[in-house]
Amino acid sequence: MSRAGRERMRGFRSFTPVDEAVRALLAAVDQALEAETLPIGDAVGRYAAENVVAPKDWPPYDRSAVDGVAVRASDVSGASPDSPIPLRIVGEVSPSTPLGELPRVGEGEAAIVYTGAPIPPGADAVVPIEEVLIEGRVAHVMGRVPPKGNVSLRGEDLRAGDIIASVGQRIRPWHVVAAAQVDVTEVRVWRRYRVAVVNTGNELREVGEPGDGVPNTAAYLISSWARELGAEVVSRVTVPDDEQVVREAVERGLGVADAVVVTGGTSVGKADVVPEAVASIPGARLVFHGVAERPGRTAGAFVVGGKPVLMVSGLPVACLVALNNFLRPLILRAYRAVEEPKPVVRARLVRRVANVVGFRSYYRVAVWREGGEYLVEPLMISGSGVVSSLIKGNGILVVPEHVEGYDEGEHVEVELIGPVREGRPPWLR
Amino acid sequence: MSRAGRERMRGFRSFTPVDEAVRALLAAVDQALEAETLPIGDAVGRYAAENVVAPKDWPPYDRSAVDGVAVRASDVSGASPDSPIPLRIVGEVSPSTPLGELPRVGEGEAAIVYTGAPIPPGADAVVPIEEVLIEGRVAHVMGRVPPKGNVSLRGEDLRAGDIIASVGQRIRPWHVVAAAQVDVTEVRVWRRYRVAVVNTGNELREVGEPGDGVPNTAAYLISSWARELGAEVVSRVTVPDDEQVVREAVERGLGVADAVVVTGGTSVGKADVVPEAVASIPGARLVFHGVAERPGRTAGAFVVGGKPVLMVSGLPVACLVALNNFLRPLILRAYRAVEEPKPVVRARLVRRVANVVGFRSYYRVAVWREGGEYLVEPLMISGSGVVSSLIKGNGILVVPEHVEGYDEGEHVEVELIGPVREGRPPWLR
Repeated sequence: MSRAGRERMRGFRSFTPVDEAVRALLAAVDQALEAETLPIGDAVGRYAAENVVAPKDWPPYDRSAVDGVAVRASDVSGASPDSPIPLRIVGEVSPSTPLGELPRVGEGEAAIVYTGAPIPPGADAVVPIEEVLIEGRVAHVMGRVPPKGNVSLRGEDLRAGDIIASVGQRIRPWHVVAAAQVDVTEVRVWRRYRVAVVNTGNELREVGEPGDGVPNTAAYLISSWARELGAEVVSRVTVPDDEQVVREAVERGLGVADAVVVTGGTSVGKADVVPEAVASIPGARLVFHGVAERPGRTAGAFVVGGKPVLMVSGLPVACLVALNNFLRPLILRAYRAVEEPKPVVRARLVRRVANVVGFRSYYRVAVWREGGEYLVEPLMISGSGVVSSLIKGNGILVVPEHVEGYDEGEHVEVELIGPVREGRPPWLR
Repeated sequence: MSRAGRERMRGFRSFTPVDEAVRALLAAVDQALEAETLPIGDAVGRYAAENVVAPKDWPPYDRSAVDGVAVRASDVSGASPDSPIPLRIVGEVSPSTPLGELPRVGEGEAAIVYTGAPIPPGADAVVPIEEVLIEGRVAHVMGRVPPKGNVSLRGEDLRAGDIIASVGQRIRPWHVVAAAQVDVTEVRVWRRYRVAVVNTGNELREVGEPGDGVPNTAAYLISSWARELGAEVVSRVTVPDDEQVVREAVERGLGVADAVVVTGGTSVGKADVVPEAVASIPGARLVFHGVAERPGRTAGAFVVGGKPVLMVSGLPVACLVALNNFLRPLILRAYRAVEEPKPVVRARLVRRVANVVGFRSYYRVAVWREGGEYLVEPLMISGSGVVSSLIKGNGILVVPEHVEGYDEGEHVEVELIGPVREGRPPWLR
């Protein structure tokens, strides 16, 4: 072992706080993606690149909000169940009646209308059918109604110029339907954020291949994580711990993607070829290396030509924490998006949780309901590589840097990553 | 207008409570989908049709959990910074060292090990590098360690036979990575639940087409809603309000899909061809018609040959409520899945909300942060068709059947459907 290697095995000199690392990264990188046009039916889950604007009013004309009879409000101002006012029925209007074929409602007249039907000319209000007795061609109106009563006015729902989805909005079904309502059939969305993955490690073998090596799981994690966020992995390569080979792989990744994620070899406890490989790329600038988070403290980031190169652990939990802390804000910023709300629950701790002050810790926990309350138990199995902590638990408890820990019985807020059931899960030991 | 039509315009005789309608539907329908095999990398968002089981242990052998030196714990039981114990270094082991090439650690010996490296034979613990001084071929150990200390034991994370994802689990990135860890490359998932959509209404025209008619937005809503849930719309047709035509369209839908959703024409306030059309299909059985929910009270359901035929409003908000209340539990049950947790927030009402007792009401609301608390305001714009209430708000407030309303200042739980920002949104009037 070289002297430098021994020196590095002593560990990082300092760890950058998570928020500071994120701020530095966002200050160093500001990416503008191209937009693409999609049929609105295919846009769910994508992010608007331009405001989606209503080109016209909806409803396009005054419509009845109920089933009933369209009248002149002034004609029925004295109506009551005891003294119904008879009106002559001049026609019947449904939502499919062409606007050119509407009956005219004069004084002392009424038209039967169905919900959504255009208000016929002359009428200015609708009396609900429950307050009308119909006999042949006469409507006996038993209730009064103010002008515009039970009428949905033109433009009441959407007015020409209204913003249906603003830049950065992640498109949900209701944005699709609102756009369709005013005949918007295409939207401009950001193209997917592209990620290149470089997995380093002499020990790695492909998943499913025979042999002693360590299966390259990080590649699967990153691509499925990216997919959930509306991004995509566009290239992936596994390389040995060789500075020149790593450097070339990162450079190729930078050529095809918006960000490069390099896994493995980032610890100072291992031959640290990755930081040196990336540092040797012309124009590369180190943003941070070593973060005050557990797991994931070996994470680091460079910027090369305006693009981020993230160095993360290849161990699943540490990798996930680093992706969420660093790549997620970069992708959301490129989409001009804000974070969607996450499912959280307040729950009572059944066992103490300790923290190393100065570090932000991500505990995998199990949350369940019992006796009408939510209980939470940190999983004993922990460590940056222990993937079973994610599949056996259903939540993440974040302990902030300034907190020494939480006591048994304390109420804490937990982010849920899976369904909550009744009773303590039997697979907890 | 016929006598029967007038009679029906009076409205439903009674409305089934939502929970009762759901129970009746789930009791009448129990669908088993076929399973399909997917590469694990493509399974995110799908639902496991068989338990995903670890075929072997992970780690596959005892591994070092830290960078350090592998020792016999008994050799260093007396070690301290003041009296370090010198051990002869017999080799160096990294995660990529083949198992057949591990050095043997005898009494008085040690091997340098990196995180993830197999523990060499003879050693039973690892002293972290921070507690070791290395000089040439000698490791001066300054700390003691118990047997198995800093060792990840074989099978500690996953044991052969452990369940990685059980039937009905929606696959997330951590299930993918856990499967990959034990070389599981394919999983069995339920094929997507298939929905056929029949949009009825003489007034309908396709979105983007010119003319007076009403754009057929429900089709867009249903397909984007299904997509978010991991289901798919496999057929869609728009038909006029003609009993025979509707019946044939529903029968064709039943031929290709697991469920048929018929929009429009389900109100008794309109020529009610849909219930009569579906009822005329041999074997059709009415489950409910008329639900105590606002909006969406005209919803109904038949079962035909074990498949549900849902009748829902074509108006966006009512349609969405009915899809969530009735189609969602059917799809999740077919997937053997349970509901994922939803983002909710407790917020203080800035305006009173009223309810019609006996009905479950779905208020569209705006939630924001102000002065360190969450505030919630029901949107004035309401009604079953008012899509702007969904895009201008960011939450749904459900008022249960037995509640008359909530007062200004009360704290209520709101389901969030979009990001929460600081300050009252300026577009609220």
